Order: sequence, then structure tokens, then C-alpha cells
Amino acid sequence: MEIIDNIHEMQSRSEALKMAGHSVALVPTMGFFHEGHLELMRVGKIHADDLVVSIFVNPMQFGPSEDYAEYPRDMDSDLEKAERVGTGIVFCPTAEQMYPDGFQTKIGAEKLSGRLCGISRPGHFDGVLTVVAKLFHITKPHLAIFGQKDYQQLTIISRMVKDLNMDIRIVGVPVVREPDGIAMSSRNSYLSPDERKSALCMKQSLDLAGEMYARGERRVPEMRAALERIILDQPFTEIDYVSFCHPTTLEEVEVIDGETVLALAVMVGKTRLIDNCIIAKGQ
Amino acid sequence: MEIIDNIHEMQSRSEALKMAGHSVALVPTMGFFHEGHLELMRVGKIHADDLVVSIFVNPMQFGPSEDYAEYPRDMDSDLEKAERVGTGIVFCPTAEQMYPDGFQTKIGAEKLSGRLCGISRPGHFDGVLTVVAKLFHITKPHLAIFGQKDYQQLTIISRMVKDLNMDIRIVGVPVVREPDGIAMSSRNSYLSPDERKSALCMKQSLDLAGEMYARGERRVPEMRAALERIILDQPFTEIDYVSFCHPTTLEEVEVIDGETVLALAVMVGKTRLIDNCIIAKGQ
Repeated sequence: MEIIDNIHEMQSRSEALKMAGHSVALVPTMGFFHEGHLELMRVGKIHADDLVVSIFVNPMQFGPSEDYAEYPRDMDSDLEKAERVGTGIVFCPTAEQMYPDGFQTKIGAEKLSGRLCGISRPGHFDGVLTVVAKLFHITKPHLAIFGQKDYQQLTIISRMVKDLNMDIRIVGVPVVREPDGIAMSSRNSYLSPDERKSALCMKQSLDLAGEMYARGERRVPEMRAALERIILDQPFTEIDYVSFCHPTTLEEVEVIDGETVLALAVMVGKTRLIDNCIIAKGQ
Repeated sequence: MEIIDNIHEMQSRSEALKMAGHSVALVPTMGFFHEGHLELMRVGKIHADDLVVSIFVNPMQFGPSEDYAEYPRDMDSDLEKAERVGTGIVFCPTAEQMYPDGFQTKIGAEKLSGRLCGISRPGHFDGVLTVVAKLFHITKPHLAIFGQKDYQQLTIISRMVKDLNMDIRIVGVPVVREPDGIAMSSRNSYLSPDERKSALCMKQSLDLAGEMYARGERRVPEMRAALERIILDQPFTEIDYVSFCHPTTLEEVEVIDGETVLALAVMVGKTRLIDNCIIAKGQ
């Protein structure tokens, strides 16, 4: 496995791979790998000749009061795990290299960024789009793999790729969960054992929504109220949003009539967790 | 000469050229070609195996009260001229294809866009950056050629390419002028004969600044006052700005101390004209 920390070296390396006729898959990450990341890498390997994994905790997508400094990092363990699933190249640039003096270009998708997580995290998705565009230009992939756990992120990136005519296929990979149902996330490491128990309410409320839908419920206010009860019955929880929305525009719906995303953001203690599922898929 | 109006066809064509080992130069234009455009094409041909010229009057870079509808167009003449200088491919997409329903992604460079033309044309440079990024992703050039007449545009695009790590070389080409000194521009076609005479004051004021500098003048307020007099002595003129600024940050300077750009924007009748020169080049 090659480890590249220089932007121009990565660019030449990817260019050489493409010119040799190889297809390249990119898995962009902020490191601290769990099974969810490794699943993205496995999917990448299936779809392309060469797999590039980027590890970069992107300061531009963290708000001033957010957890950039504390965000968990473990490069040695990450490299070992990436190698074990057959990653060809790990790209791990420094923040100084990615954001040199005078940097000022920003990519935004106004409508999609104003919804869900974008409301409590202003500027977050501009930071995501900008760094993803940079990583695309540096690693020049044919396809890029993202987790559906960050549903809004996947939606906004797909929109950018389409709007800016980036010749890259975006592949979404279903949420990977712990045996007890909690969605894998690097931020789970922040949870105390008691908070971790409370956090189970997120998957439970997704399941409840599925059951209510199966029983014929279509009214969002009724479903939302039931879900909020499950979440707020647990200690340490505070709801950021319980959203039933359109799968590509993310516009809120009041009645389920066709494919709908149920997206949750909940503070558990000081940790902000998100989860989602698709209701009435393919309808 | 090939004429391509479909985005995906252009993308495949450029990809094939690159995979065949050809270097590709892009000259992005809004058409209505004059000698200035043809010069960009000639420079493109010198630097690359294949020359792609795009013709697209980009609605996103025009303000609501600007001249998008009236902007001069002459596709037949453009194709003939492009072919005569040896263009390989003309790419001319429709606005509907470039900006489909739901389009919302925008690229901005906040600091540079807030200066010079950005002040009287809010949103203009977001439109420029966004369409140029789209054209780059569609035509996949190794290098792209822009005129120095649109100095701020060239500066902002260079900034975007650097900030977003686009692997594209940006080449600037000096202003091409009519025999009487007026900078070539598609918008010169708007001028009445009398307005055209008045417009000569722009080049005259650039020349005066050079003379004052040669005589030892370094104080910007003194130089600006002299230039403004020349411009306002002409009928039909109204000054938007007379700016002495840093060549890459575009920050205003009050004393010339090193390479400085003198940039002018003047309304002549209802036509907005720009021109510029570099003072103390290489100092």
C-alpha cells in the first residue's frame, strides 16, 4: 500500500493510473476507521481496478463551536485497516497543504444546504462540497463511494457532481450498524456507556416508523410524535430534527406518498448523532 | 472541425483525446468572435495538440438588469472564424442543458469577487467561476486560455484552479487592441460612432498613467485624478472605477511600490467597457 501526503504527487499518480487504463475508486474519509468505512472500501474495490482512500479531517466543515480539535484520530490503526481490505493508495494531506494562505474558493448548494443538518450546522456543507471537489481534482476518480448514513451529504455531493458536470459516478453504501442496531460512527467513541444505551432509541424509532408505515399510517405528524416520544423517553437525549423528506430535494413532506427519507439528528449528551432510513422505497 | 452540442458527447470526446495521449487546450468564450478571441485560439494551438473552443453565452453571469438578451451572437460567422484558425472542436451547449431544473451549485471566491467589477456586478463572478468549472469538467483540458482584458476574471479563475486543485494550466493572453488603441470587445458593437470616439479615453488614460509613472509619479490619488479628468472630459462617459491594485489580491494601493494593475471600468453611453494595464511590471 502506498501512502501519499503530497497533492501533486497524488495527482501525478492518479493521472498515471488513468493513462494506464486503470479505473480508480475514491473513498474520502476523515479516518478513525470502523466497519462502515471498511465497507465503503470493499465496495470501491469491487467497482474499480485501484482504490484510493483519503484520510483528512477537514477543518472547513466544522463550525467554530464544533469538535474539530477533539475529532478522534488514529493514523496507525487506520493504515493497518486500510491495508487489510486491499487499499492501493492512502492519501493523507496536511491542512496547511489543503488550505494555503489566500485560500477563498467555496462551493455551495444553497437549497439543499439549508435543510436538516444544514440548519444547525451553517457552512458545514460548503466545507464538505469544497473539500470533496478538491479531493476529486486531486485523485481524479472514475467513481467515489459515500455512506448513506450521511444521507444529506450524499445527496448534496450527488447534486454537485451533476450540476458541475463532474465525470464521476457516485455510489452510496447502506448504513452499517453495530449488532445492537446503532449506526457506526467515529463519534460513537464520545459516548459514555449510559449514553450509548440511550442512543439505541434512534434505530428503535426508525424501526417504529417502518412498523407504523406497514400498518398503514401515512400521516407524518402522527409518526413524528411517536418517534419523538421514544427518543425523549431516554435520558441525555435532545432532538435536533426528526424529518420526513423527499429523497433528492430533501423537502419536508406531511403525508407519505412515494419514496421518503426519515432522517434523525439527536444530541446524546454532548454528542450529535445522525441516522436515517428510507420509507416506502421504490414506491 | 467538429461541432458538439451535447455535454456527454463532449466529455467522451475529450476523454478519448486524453487517453490517446493528446494534450487539450480550451478557449472558453461567449462567441461573437473578434481578433482577441482568435488570438486566444492561436495561443491554444501553440500549446496543445487539440484545441477546443466553447461558445456559450452564460446566463448565470449576467445580472437581471444586464444585457444577456441583447448580447451579440453570430454562430455562423463564429464557426467560420474558429475553423480558419484551426480549431479542432467547437462545443456549443444550450442553456437548458447547462442549467437543468434543480440546478443550484455555485462556486464563489468571496474576497476577489467583492472588488472592482464585482461591486457593480454582484453575483457575476460566481456565475463565471461556476460555468468555467463546468466547462473544465466537460472538456477536461490540460490548459485553458483567457484574455488579460478581463483581468479580474483571469485572477479569480486562477485562484479557483489553485484552491480547488484543478490540474489545469491557466494561460493569460495580453489585451488585443484595434489600430486606434481601443481594447477589442464584443460589447464595442453597442457603441455609436460618437461613443466609440469617446471610448478612446480609456487607452489614453492607461497611457497617461504609464507616462506619469515613467516621470517618477508613485502617488495613486494624483494619478487617479489625472486619469479621471481625461475620461470625464469626453462626452457620454461615466466612471465605474479607476483602480490601482495588487496583481493577485486586487487590493487597492495608495502608492505604487511594485507590480500594480491599473484597471478601468467606464460606462460610455449605455455600454460598460473595461480595460487595464500593468504598471511597474516585474518590479
